[in-house]
Amino acid sequence: MQLGMIGLGRMGGNIVRRLVRNGHSAVVYDKDAKAVAGLAADGAQGASTLEEFVAKLDKPRAAWVMLPAGRITETTIEALAKLMDAGDVIIDGGNTFWQDDVRRGKALKERGIHYVDVGTSGGVWGLDRGYCMMIGGDKAVVDRLDPIFGTLAPGAGDIPRTPGREDRDPRIEQGYIHAGPIGAGHFVKMIHNGIEYGLMQAYAEGFDILKNASTEALPADHRFDFDLADIAEVWRRGSVIPSWLLDLTSTALADSPALSEYSGFVEDSGEGRWTVNAAIDEAVPAEVLTAALFARFRSRKEHTFAEKILSAMRAGFGGHKEPKQPDASKPKA
Amino acid sequence: MQLGMIGLGRMGGNIVRRLVRNGHSAVVYDKDAKAVAGLAADGAQGASTLEEFVAKLDKPRAAWVMLPAGRITETTIEALAKLMDAGDVIIDGGNTFWQDDVRRGKALKERGIHYVDVGTSGGVWGLDRGYCMMIGGDKAVVDRLDPIFGTLAPGAGDIPRTPGREDRDPRIEQGYIHAGPIGAGHFVKMIHNGIEYGLMQAYAEGFDILKNASTEALPADHRFDFDLADIAEVWRRGSVIPSWLLDLTSTALADSPALSEYSGFVEDSGEGRWTVNAAIDEAVPAEVLTAALFARFRSRKEHTFAEKILSAMRAGFGGHKEPKQPDASKPKA
Amino acid sequence: MQLGMIGLGRMGGNIVRRLVRNGHSAVVYDKDAKAVAGLAADGAQGASTLEEFVAKLDKPRAAWVMLPAGRITETTIEALAKLMDAGDVIIDGGNTFWQDDVRRGKALKERGIHYVDVGTSGGVWGLDRGYCMMIGGDKAVVDRLDPIFGTLAPGAGDIPRTPGREDRDPRIEQGYIHAGPIGAGHFVKMIHNGIEYGLMQAYAEGFDILKNASTEALPADHRFDFDLADIAEVWRRGSVIPSWLLDLTSTALADSPALSEYSGFVEDSGEGRWTVNAAIDEAVPAEVLTAALFARFRSRKEHTFAEKILSAMRAGFGGHKEPKQPDASKPKA
Amino acid sequence: MQLGMIGLGRMGGNIVRRLVRNGHSAVVYDKDAKAVAGLAADGAQGASTLEEFVAKLDKPRAAWVMLPAGRITETTIEALAKLMDAGDVIIDGGNTFWQDDVRRGKALKERGIHYVDVGTSGGVWGLDRGYCMMIGGDKAVVDRLDPIFGTLAPGAGDIPRTPGREDRDPRIEQGYIHAGPIGAGHFVKMIHNGIEYGLMQAYAEGFDILKNASTEALPADHRFDFDLADIAEVWRRGSVIPSWLLDLTSTALADSPALSEYSGFVEDSGEGRWTVNAAIDEAVPAEVLTAALFARFRSRKEHTFAEKILSAMRAGFGGHKEPKQPDASKPKA
Repeated sequence: MQLGMIGLGRMGGNIVRRLVRNGHSAVVYDKDAKAVAGLAADGAQGASTLEEFVAKLDKPRAAWVMLPAGRITETTIEALAKLMDAGDVIIDGGNTFWQDDVRRGKALKERGIHYVDVGTSGGVWGLDRGYCMMIGGDKAVVDRLDPIFGTLAPGAGDIPRTPGREDRDPRIEQGYIHAGPIGAGHFVKMIHNGIEYGLMQAYAEGFDILKNASTEALPADHRFDFDLADIAEVWRRGSVIPSWLLDLTSTALADSPALSEYSGFVEDSGEGRWTVNAAIDEAVPAEVLTAALFARFRSRKEHTFAEKILSAMRAGFGGHKEPKQPDASKPKA
Repeated sequence: MQLGMIGLGRMGGNIVRRLVRNGHSAVVYDKDAKAVAGLAADGAQGASTLEEFVAKLDKPRAAWVMLPAGRITETTIEALAKLMDAGDVIIDGGNTFWQDDVRRGKALKERGIHYVDVGTSGGVWGLDRGYCMMIGGDKAVVDRLDPIFGTLAPGAGDIPRTPGREDRDPRIEQGYIHAGPIGAGHFVKMIHNGIEYGLMQAYAEGFDILKNASTEALPADHRFDFDLADIAEVWRRGSVIPSWLLDLTSTALADSPALSEYSGFVEDSGEGRWTVNAAIDEAVPAEVLTAALFARFRSRKEHTFAEKILSAMRAGFGGHKEPKQPDASKPKA
Repeated sequence: MQLGMIGLGRMGGNIVRRLVRNGHSAVVYDKDAKAVAGLAADGAQGASTLEEFVAKLDKPRAAWVMLPAGRITETTIEALAKLMDAGDVIIDGGNTFWQDDVRRGKALKERGIHYVDVGTSGGVWGLDRGYCMMIGGDKAVVDRLDPIFGTLAPGAGDIPRTPGREDRDPRIEQGYIHAGPIGAGHFVKMIHNGIEYGLMQAYAEGFDILKNASTEALPADHRFDFDLADIAEVWRRGSVIPSWLLDLTSTALADSPALSEYSGFVEDSGEGRWTVNAAIDEAVPAEVLTAALFARFRSRKEHTFAEKILSAMRAGFGGHKEPKQPDASKPKA
Repeated sequence: MQLGMIGLGRMGGNIVRRLVRNGHSAVVYDKDAKAVAGLAADGAQGASTLEEFVAKLDKPRAAWVMLPAGRITETTIEALAKLMDAGDVIIDGGNTFWQDDVRRGKALKERGIHYVDVGTSGGVWGLDRGYCMMIGGDKAVVDRLDPIFGTLAPGAGDIPRTPGREDRDPRIEQGYIHAGPIGAGHFVKMIHNGIEYGLMQAYAEGFDILKNASTEALPADHRFDFDLADIAEVWRRGSVIPSWLLDLTSTALADSPALSEYSGFVEDSGEGRWTVNAAIDEAVPAEVLTAALFARFRSRKEHTFAEKILSAMRAGFGGHKEPKQPDASKPKA
């Protein structure tokens, strides 16, 4: 079927490519004319304005917006909606905050325009590997788009089937889910990313302890000098902790055992934050997901003001002078 | 080659079975004569005393001890060592604290007895799937036991190879590693389990937030009623967070969506604790691994004394009366 | 000067009493006629409707709303504002979310009505001890209300003066602060409560470790049977950790060493949650304040769903059966 | 009575001064002859060798060792014990690990020498303010030393009495406690310090959130520019969170609002670590005390290896490039 795509970055562009390769047609628009031309060369129909984009879509239209979450997505959807008609559907496939979906869905519904939110996972691997999609929206609308989702999804592949799922929704095993009403898709994607942060931090801390097992702060007969690349690799095989994230870690460590090309500053996108907010709203303790988020915050600061407050108190009650240089793993006696 | 096995529980028994099935010979001993008889039926040579066990082993002997970590392993190794000769090797394949390995290794070395520590991962799946082994000890001794390790390991299987590992130790891709001197094996296994706790808790918190998204404490248009079994399954396919632990979660949720057969009390073995101790000794922040451990501690208490202290303070400064019944996700205004 | 008070609960009632005792006049209103009558007996002028309340106030009016944060405060302020005139001031002294202050302040400003937010600390002790007040609003309006704040504040008392503050705002040493524009008062009060949670949890965990030092899971020569009431008391004197919260703890433990009258379920009000949300919005790591909040969430559940997920995984990979009864401080070997 | 003191640093020296000022006699020894001379000038009797020190003490001798915890305390006590006789008492007033006390106490007991462990709080303020002492040892021995403890303790002062303590051990209100058998003193002091870390971190995080409330990552109408010195001061007066640590913070902020003279590297002594270890041994969740410890570890590193692992994974699955410069409070869309 036909899909319109606004936003031809890494994700949007590859989604279109995967659709076109598999027999769908696509109309594409991006502020960057070069990006439009690139996709046109790959078989999509380009549009140079939003108006032209809408005009080229068959009714009822289906337009997927794939832009950075926030202001730009908001204004684009507003502009798009003004050009669309009742019965058309706008799909937000970005990393939008689910409460924005709920709000937008209500506003669009008043004008008869459908809204579907799709949490899309796949990153740079999606073009070939397919995209895991978590979808929110009305059933009829989501069903109408099923050919698109079915093509974008990774498919069952050779991943072993989970026993006991024989009579369940077959889309799940293809790698996409209609998770609930508007907002549900991005909510599930949000939790996916929250878990992702936690998993990453768990591995990261484990490797950090292995790395520091050679510190001279330890007694000589309690030190080890581990090969982290080998340890990451061996855990991929027969242990309890294999995962795709471990595969990536093993690859990275094989390539660069000290990872010295990384600055140590770690970005976070909104999902990790919203996951903690959701936990708080529900009164669910979420220590690990929160600690993983805070570790990223901390990574992006030379020092926190909190640390200076600590030092000021220590000077106050004990006359302690803090070191000017980092480290010292040993406690100060 | 020949291996002696002391301790024929689930792990020890299946290790022997996997060896015998693959052409090795085994001498086995357990306090429980029935366990010995069972393994004898599966092709091992039984022994009814420790003395008989040692006598049946060819020199230089190789005896694997597979008992619960702690006192029983300690006394068994002491008794075994008294019966062994210089050049023999004792393998501790249990979940021993690595500092106990270091101590024991030194003591045994004085009598010419070798010691190898093996962190063995595989659980109930190991017989068929193979065991991921993390090994500490002297190189010559570990090399001598290589036929055993090679058979117990899962082998390369169809797990994709990690690029850039072509010139590296080929044992790693078979699923076992000589990680370093005595103690290194259990150290790496300890970290493996520490990470395991963190990964598990990350998934658990994520599913908890999904589960509680239907709580009436939330505004009506911010509630969702998710199918957790389907979400677990879809994440196995094309997302960033597939793992073996997620496979198991998907299976469990497909079988029992509310998991109501579980009490909610969660045990911990020593490795999670020692991991945090190691982090502290090295001055490595390990928030996630620690939070995962503490969540298990908390799960095993009706209430903590800490909570009563909080309530006592609240009554003191605000005259607050705490509820007699659990829950209330909403904050008290 | 004259102040109107809406909401005659413990806080509102005592604020009026403290004002009247010190020569101010007060007009009071509450849905509960008995509460109005009670305050009238204490020297305030009662009103039986909101209209009467407004009518009895001298212009420019000053009306303090002291109600539970949320819906009831919102609707009361709306109703009150409709009856008031340009130049009047509405004071929200409750535990309102500071972003609601910002929104409300803007809306009221359009109608010429002033808004002041006051974070009020003091609890059941405030009547005699005075109230620590954190105030947000326009300078001229806050200054106009200074006689009220000056009377409600605890005053300098015999608390030692902080060196280096000689030339600073003298109100601070009286126990009240004009912290900034609208919202600033409740923001500072929010952080005060966030810190309060963290302090409380720190003491609580410390006493919990002391309490459990007698557990049989420890080796016999590593057990202690401490007198917690005596320890709380001794720390009040010459240690680094004296505080008012410790005073309250000492009193509670002297009265009831096992604190067995407390259920262990611990409520949270909104401020702890908003503090964490603020930390997240600012990308400030706030591990301790968050952990303190989550400990309260956890205290109000028999078990979390997360714990069942953990058990399901453990059963999946290791065949582990979890206990049906709580505790067991020892790790499972 | 007479006391011997080994170790004339800030703590040991001032303890002697406080004793001598109050009519006790003291024999002092330190490796640093100048320190000995200094105390001699203040009225103590100096000794230039350990042997001379012991010889000058009246039997049964009482010798207080006040040295940095660890090796130097261990070897000094061993050397001292060789010179002492049955019935003498060695007091370790430093920050010794309580399990070392238990071990030492047993060894000394075999030779009839008594051992008392004293956790001593007071820092640079102790000379004038007195020392809060937490004492472990046999009752008879602790009672014998009571004149010393009574003089060193702060005394009741003008700290309000806790109701309900009228019939309890009067020493507690003087600021010292016989907490239990050998090791109990340092155990209680350890928890004191563990709590201290938690309290400090709670305040520190709160001030950090206040500080960052002006960040441009926030919407303009949600920003505040707070005066932290004033806020610290106002909380000392009538709030729920006054404490001595807050007094010190208020002083520090009044003196240096940005605390720019502090590097941000924060030391930890052993007690915070041992507190967490104790929590783990007892299976007590201690999130806050642990998070406070880890925040100090993190403060002493430019970056953790964990952070590089995170970045390597992010590059692996998403092609993300991390920033080379710190900060950015906003999430990356």
